[in-house]
Formats: sequence, C-alpha cells, structure tokens
Amino acid sequence: MGTKYTLGIDYGTLSARALLVDVNTGEEIATALYEYPHGVMDTYLPDHSTKLMPDFALQHPQDYIDALEYTITELLKKTGINNEDIIGVCSDFTECSMLPVDARGIPLCFQEKYKTNPHSYVKLWKHHAAQEEANKLNQIAEKRGEAFLKRYGGKISSEWMFPKIWQILEEDPALYHDTTKFMELADWATMQLTGVESKNSCTAGYKAIWHKREGFPSKAFFKELHPELENVIEEKFNPVVYPIGSIAGQVTKEASRLTGLKEGTIVAVGIGDAHAAVPAVGITEPGKMLMIMGTSTCHMMLGDKEAIVPGMCGVVEDGIIPGYYGYEAGQSCVGDHFQWFKDHCVPEAYEKEANERGINIFTLLSEKAEKLSPGESGLLALDWWNGNRSVLVDVDLTGLIIGMTLLTKPEEIYRALIEATAFGTKMIVETFQEYGVPVNELYAAGGIAEKNQLMMQIYSDVTNMDIKIAASPQAPALGAAIYAAVAAGKEKGGYDDIYTAAKTMGKVKDASYSPNKESVSVYESLYEEYKKLHDYFGRGENTVMKKLKKIKENVYYVNER
Amino acid sequence: MGTKYTLGIDYGTLSARALLVDVNTGEEIATALYEYPHGVMDTYLPDHSTKLMPDFALQHPQDYIDALEYTITELLKKTGINNEDIIGVCSDFTECSMLPVDARGIPLCFQEKYKTNPHSYVKLWKHHAAQEEANKLNQIAEKRGEAFLKRYGGKISSEWMFPKIWQILEEDPALYHDTTKFMELADWATMQLTGVESKNSCTAGYKAIWHKREGFPSKAFFKELHPELENVIEEKFNPVVYPIGSIAGQVTKEASRLTGLKEGTIVAVGIGDAHAAVPAVGITEPGKMLMIMGTSTCHMMLGDKEAIVPGMCGVVEDGIIPGYYGYEAGQSCVGDHFQWFKDHCVPEAYEKEANERGINIFTLLSEKAEKLSPGESGLLALDWWNGNRSVLVDVDLTGLIIGMTLLTKPEEIYRALIEATAFGTKMIVETFQEYGVPVNELYAAGGIAEKNQLMMQIYSDVTNMDIKIAASPQAPALGAAIYAAVAAGKEKGGYDDIYTAAKTMGKVKDASYSPNKESVSVYESLYEEYKKLHDYFGRGENTVMKKLKKIKENVYYVNER
Repeated sequence: MGTKYTLGIDYGTLSARALLVDVNTGEEIATALYEYPHGVMDTYLPDHSTKLMPDFALQHPQDYIDALEYTITELLKKTGINNEDIIGVCSDFTECSMLPVDARGIPLCFQEKYKTNPHSYVKLWKHHAAQEEANKLNQIAEKRGEAFLKRYGGKISSEWMFPKIWQILEEDPALYHDTTKFMELADWATMQLTGVESKNSCTAGYKAIWHKREGFPSKAFFKELHPELENVIEEKFNPVVYPIGSIAGQVTKEASRLTGLKEGTIVAVGIGDAHAAVPAVGITEPGKMLMIMGTSTCHMMLGDKEAIVPGMCGVVEDGIIPGYYGYEAGQSCVGDHFQWFKDHCVPEAYEKEANERGINIFTLLSEKAEKLSPGESGLLALDWWNGNRSVLVDVDLTGLIIGMTLLTKPEEIYRALIEATAFGTKMIVETFQEYGVPVNELYAAGGIAEKNQLMMQIYSDVTNMDIKIAASPQAPALGAAIYAAVAAGKEKGGYDDIYTAAKTMGKVKDASYSPNKESVSVYESLYEEYKKLHDYFGRGENTVMKKLKKIKENVYYVNER
Repeated sequence: MGTKYTLGIDYGTLSARALLVDVNTGEEIATALYEYPHGVMDTYLPDHSTKLMPDFALQHPQDYIDALEYTITELLKKTGINNEDIIGVCSDFTECSMLPVDARGIPLCFQEKYKTNPHSYVKLWKHHAAQEEANKLNQIAEKRGEAFLKRYGGKISSEWMFPKIWQILEEDPALYHDTTKFMELADWATMQLTGVESKNSCTAGYKAIWHKREGFPSKAFFKELHPELENVIEEKFNPVVYPIGSIAGQVTKEASRLTGLKEGTIVAVGIGDAHAAVPAVGITEPGKMLMIMGTSTCHMMLGDKEAIVPGMCGVVEDGIIPGYYGYEAGQSCVGDHFQWFKDHCVPEAYEKEANERGINIFTLLSEKAEKLSPGESGLLALDWWNGNRSVLVDVDLTGLIIGMTLLTKPEEIYRALIEATAFGTKMIVETFQEYGVPVNELYAAGGIAEKNQLMMQIYSDVTNMDIKIAASPQAPALGAAIYAAVAAGKEKGGYDDIYTAAKTMGKVKDASYSPNKESVSVYESLYEEYKKLHDYFGRGENTVMKKLKKIKENVYYVNER
C-alpha cells in the first residue's frame, strides 16, 4: 500500500481551508484557502438593500459550497495526487453556526421567496441577536431546576442552537414552519459530501444541550419556552447523534463531480473547529489542557468522569475524544485585549519608533515589555474588558487596572494586560483542579501561541507549568484530517482508534516553554492579589462594575429621549 | 492725593514676576517677568562638575536678587510712574524654600569655600532628599504624642523646614555650625528690601510647625531628634513671628539703588505663594474654598475656630488672613495627571488629528470629552497616580481605573481622570464640612481654572456648587500687592485692614460655573461608588497598592544585586 492521505476541511469565520495530510507521518502535504465572497453579513443582505437588525451576524451558504469546490480541486491539481489515495475526509466548522433547510437539506435562502429574509441565512456563531431568548431560556431552566444548566456553567449562551431557533420562531413563524431542519453547519458541510445528515456529538453536546445518556432537554422544558417548541427535536432537529470519529457516509456522485474526490471516499462526522485542535497536538488523555489562543481563548480538557466545574462552558461525553468527557472553558478577551490597547493607548512616539525601525507595533511593545521583570511595573489588571466567561460567567463585569504612578509607561500597561490574561488562565486551571479535574500540563495553539514568545513565557511563569506549542499553524484542519483517518480505519490505511491516530499524526514543536523559578515566585505573590480583586469585584462583594453599566445604560436612555 | 500703587513680587519655581497694581481699583497696570538663569538645579551645581544626589532640587539665590533688580527697574521704566506713588511692596515665594545664611543674611553659597557645597544653596520646595529625616521626625513626634501632628494631617512633609535643616546637620555638620540662620525664602526675599529679618506667620505656620499660642515645637522634641537641634529655634531660626499684612520694614538705601524704589517705601512681611492668592480673589471670610489648580491643587479655607480636619495639610491662625484660622488641604496629582495621560496614552491618530487641525492635543481631548455625558463612559478612577495627600495622607497609594470595555475610547479615560480629581475635591469638601469647617462656595485660580472650561464645569457638577474664577492670571502677585496696601495703611493711600483691601482689589471673573441639575444627579451616583473604592483601597481594607509597591521594590533590589 503506497502513501495514503486524508483531508481536513476547516471552515473558519472569513475563509475555509483544505489540508492534505500524510496519514502515516502527519506531514502536511499541501493546503488551499478560499475566502468567502460574502464574508460576515452584519449590516445588509447580499441584495444591499435589506437592512439587518443590530447584533445580527449572517453568512451565505453558497460560500461554503464554493469553498468546497475550489479548495479540493486546487489541492488535487497542485499536488497531482491520485484521488484514490485519499482515504478519508472530515470537516470542522465554527460553532454554533446554524441554518434552516428544506426536506432535501437545501438552505431556505436559496429559495426565491426567502432571498430577502435574513432568517433564511446562516446565523454565524457570533450572531448575538437572540440574547432575549437566551435570557428567558436560562430563567425558565433555572426555575425548573434543569440539571443540564450546571453542565454549562449555569448559562446557555445566546450564541447557541436553541436561542437561535427560538428567535426565528418568535420573529418569523412562517419561516419556522417552512423549515424542515435546523442544522449545525459542521453537519451541513459534511452533508454536502455524503448527501445525508449525521449529527455529530461535539457540536450537539456543546451547542445543543445534548447529553449521551440524557439526550436533549425534555419536551416539557421546550413546551415551557414556547408551545410550538414542544416537539422541536423530533420535528425540526433530528435526535440521532453520532460520536465524533465515526463514519458519516461516503462521497456521493454529485460531490465527486464538484470536488474531484473519488466517489465512495469515507467521510467522518463533522466537528467544532476549536475542539478539532485537541488531537492535532496529540492530546488523547486527561491531565492536559489545550489553550486555543486568538481574539479569545478556549480551554479544552479531557476527564474520565463527569465533574461539575464552576464557570466551565460545557462538559460533553464523547465531545472531544470518544470515551472521555470533554471539558471546555473560556476567556472572552485575549487577543482583543491587545488590539484594544494598540488601537487606543499606544502613544505617537512608539508608533514612530516602530515605523522608523520597520517593525510591527506589537513587536516593539513586546520588546520593551520583555525587558521588564515580573512585578517591576507595580501594576495589576483584571482582564474583564469583554466580561468574564470562566470561571465567573458574567458578561457585565468590566476591566480594571491598578497601581499606576506618574512614571507608568505604556509597555508596563501592555505587560500587565498580558499578565492579567495569564492570571485568568491560572484561575481556570485551579478551579478545574479544585473540582476534581486534574491539569498537569499546558498546550497552546493559535496565532498568539505561534507568535508571542513573551506572552507564552509569562503564561508558563504564572501557571508554573510547561507549555507545549502546536506544531501546525492550522491545528483544526489537522485535527479534522486525523478524525478522517480514524473514520477510514486501519484496513484502508488509516487508524482504528483516535489514540493511535493522534499520537502519530498530532504534533507539537520541539521547543516548549518552562517556568523560570524567580518569576514563578513573584507571580505567586501577584496572583494572591489578583485573586483578592477577582473575588471582591467578581463575586458580588462590590458590584461597582454593574452599577457603572447601569448608570451608563440610563444615560443612553435619557440621551435617546 | 493722586493714584497710588503697590507692588507684588511673586517668586515662582522657574521665574519671578513683579506686578504693579492700582490701589484704589485693583487694576493691574503692568507686569515684568524674569526667568532664573540657573532654573532648578537637580543634577549639577553651577560649576557643572559637582554632582547632586537623587531627589535634590536646589536654586541659586543670585537669581532672586537679579530678578528683583530687573523686574522693578523694568516696571518703573515702562510705566514711567513716579516711585513716590508706590506706597508698598510685598513678596510671595514658593514654600518651603529655605537657605542657610551668615550673620549679615548673606547666603553661604556666596562664600568661596562653600561654592561647591550643595547644602549651601537654596533647598527648593520640591527638594525631596530629606525624606529619611521626615520619617524619623514623624515617628518621634508620634511616639511623644506631639499635639502639633494632628494640625498637619498627622504628617510633617519632607518638603518642610525642619526635615531640611536636619538633613544639613546630618550630612554636613560643619556647614550647619557655620550657618547663623536658616531662612524661609519669603522672608529672605523681603529682607533684600528691608535689610532686616521679619519672619512671616504664613510660612512659619504652614512649613515650620509654628503655632500662635504654642509657638514652635519644644526643646525636648528637637533634642530627641538630635542633641544639637535642642536649641535650633533660638540659635538658628529666630523665634519672632510677624502676622501677615504687617510691616516688615522699609526699602533701604541699597535696595533703592538696586531697584529704583524710593528709600523708605513700606515693605510688608512675606507670604507663601499659594496662600497669597486668597485675598486676590476677594476671600476674607469663612465658607469659601479657593482651589489653586496646577500640576497639583492646593485648597485654601478660612475658619473661625481651630478644628482638626483629617488629612488637611495644616491649620494656622493668621496663616492666610489675620484674625482667622487658615486651613490648607491638597491633591497631589491634578495637572500632572493629564500630562501623564498625554505623554503615555494618547494614540497616534489623535495627535495627527490635532496637528491637521492646528490645535493643541488637550484642546482636542477636551472637545471629544465634552461631547460625553456624565456616566456615559462607564469608567471610574481613583486619582492617586502621585499618592493621596488629602484626606488620606498616604504617598504609597497608586492609581486605579475601572469599567473598561473593548469600546472604551481615550477621551473617555481622559474624562474619567478629570472626574476622579473632582471626586477627590468633593471628598475634601465633605471632610471639612463633617469636621465643622463649612464650605459653601468654591473659587478657583491657576492655569487650569483659567483655561479648562470642561474641567471647571465637571467640578461644579460633581461638587454641586458654584465656582468663581480668579480674574487675575497672576493671583499670588496680586495678593501680595493687596497685602502691601494693607501694610502701607490708609493714611498713605492704602488700607487699614485686609478685608477692605481684598474686597476692593481682589477680583473674580464675571462668568462663573453653576452646576447642571441632571449632571449633579448622575455624579452623585458615581460619587457613591468612588467613595466605596476610596475607602476600600485607601483605608486599609485591601492593601494591594502597598503590596504591589513592596513587590516592585523587591524586584529593584534583586535586579540591583
């Protein structure tokens, strides 16, 4: 048997990429990228005249089909590889991104009558217009004492499946009725290859309140949300869930014609993009936390029992690696934090210096911040510019910085913001440990992990842990390719289980970060202070942040009159 | 009797100005300015080779003599006024600025043997190298239960007279022994005109721990500081104190030759520069607080009894207006605050916009901040970038800002810093009121009061009080001229008391600031939150600011090893 390949297709927020991987070595052979022509639609529909309400964030599903066609055709062309040697395909997608489809799985927005109806398009993960439904859902769930709430840190996000479905029912009942199924895009993208729907356990668990033994929430619960939602699972959603790594189907004749893949090629069930990164760094057992660091950070963990950890985003059996409980936590302001600082707080002299030296402003800031010792600035911050996801689950918290003097410099503030996010991570790690989910080692993936050495060293010093870095800059696509190899199975040249597949194909860089003893001890003292501020402002002793928000809202209201 | 004039001479930190004022109307006829050639010496002596220790801030007394000669000669020349029509002169000076002199009042630094000895020069008010002595002095005074401590908010500053004298004794006993008198510069400058020393009650009270009935601290106290200081008052300082507004002497033949003033012209005792501003705005009775707003803010108040107000800088009978108790409080970071923000936190785009429009960056920031409603930013700050003088008296406190989101803009932070200083003022006003010193009206003088309308409106809204603005941009010099008119007396064309003099010659602008009702109510809510943070971080419940400083100091120590 010659060299075999699998294909991971990663659908991101602005583009999709396909990655061709050597199954035996995990070597990334080639990649092809396609940017969505419609991007994110948050002001108008493609007709340029239908205006969208605030907080809408839509996408056009035609972009995904075009991406599928372009990237795979391009990969086959530029590698010259025989499509027979591609033994499996798997798609990962941003989550929860969802779409109403008809009986044949065709998006309602493709119908002439729905072209100008926003609710017929894809609601992207960051569509935030279902907040009202999310709030009501949480109230009702709490009142009913629904057990699922605590599996999601006490709150279902407005970004998830059922608030989005409910928003459609509330705002456009006719469209709701015309919908045969509401589909998660990870499943819909997979269906473009197989022709059949195979709901995956990852996004079902993390975004649609599915539990391996308890299933979806009860009819009574849905009925209390809205009488017409009573049978939403059976009528509009499809209750059958497949564990990740299993076979979703085979490439159809139509899909073969579209992409050039061989008809009959094995297709794995889809997976959420963040979760797909876990096997890509070789993690298949408990004790290892993967941080996916971008504008925000997702923390992925495996555990061998179902523990309730305060503030986690979710715990799902078979959610990340089959056979384990997958835990997810999150920090809502990481890269965004530094971007805010760059946009609003960097003085002209620094921009000038960066320009003159021909370097990026972040490079300059890092260079200056790197020269500082831990504790030297006397600054401490709470990284809540975008609220706090884990462990407090409170979007109304805001940022704090303390310790400024007349000698405080921009790079000191910049470093304090980095440290604050590291303290936030340490808080998550400690909370997991306290509640019985051990964390012994850290892994990092994503743009920041790749580029920002200062930040990664600070994270290592603050957490007093080694940090390994993903070798692949496209970890989700690689993870998908690994799952494709599992679905294909050993007989076809793949693997029979995810453990062997991930150990062989998943990769971290040779160089890792190790804590520096002196820094660790200074950061321990600083963390004590961080914790005190964290609890004082975050756990209700001083609610100034909420009061300031309330005052601000009142001002807006008065100004609007 | 034709028009009569008095002369106020204001010795500031970088220059001196003389101001000629019409006694009958208070009209400012002419002014002349002289910049000190030696400026502030904080690195080298004038020989450019004698290096100064950290925190030294010295001046050269020759600069004052040259200023006296130049400014008065210039004034007489450019106005053509007959020197017979100038009926009085008074000098105000930065405080405590002090100098060792010989038996004839000549500075030791004029002697060849002392030319290269830093301790022979003027220790300017902001000479901070006597901190160790100040700390020890405060410890001993506290241990002994010295009653004077509470008149100064519990702490004698390192800027004041006795820490500075003690530093000289510690570091150069020989020079201490060669010194006949240590003089406050307000008195020394006056002596340049009169030939005799007449210690004034203002700087004696505020800077040299003098009390009208209790006099200076006891011999036993001074002895405990250092055996040789036991008789410092009699031996090195001169215990006789004259109330402000009284006659110090007359212009001598030598001074007449130097300046062109008529020999025999009445000279009033000197006064501290900040305190001189009070009569210049017409304040001669209790209930009115004058804020002198520059890099920091001084608050001046009159009371008819001696109350102990926590955190005040001093209460001195006859200290500001004879017959009343003069109260002083202070905020250590006002203009400095905004300068820090401008230097370190204003993004390039704003600098560019200001440049393109040909306006000052502060003008641009104010313009943007002015468009915001109170409470709209959701931000709140503690204005402790330079510690807190009143009411907490704690230099180890540091700045705090809370409420940031990813949408927070620079002008919102700028406005929050302004508001923080206004809340600090309100805290001072409330503390005075709580301890029996009523404050009914605010007055403001200094560069900020003159120029920053946004800031003054915010102060009016936050304090819910009218604010009158000094009409004169040179309030201290005008105040000195008013005191000169009192010393001259009615018979010579002046006044017999400061009340009439100040009512006639002191001035505020026609336009004043009045609180806006809606803003007042929002600021009341914000102030509640400010107070809570103020007390939590300022009164020892959470000592994070001090701990961060301690960690920072340890880092410096480790790095220095």
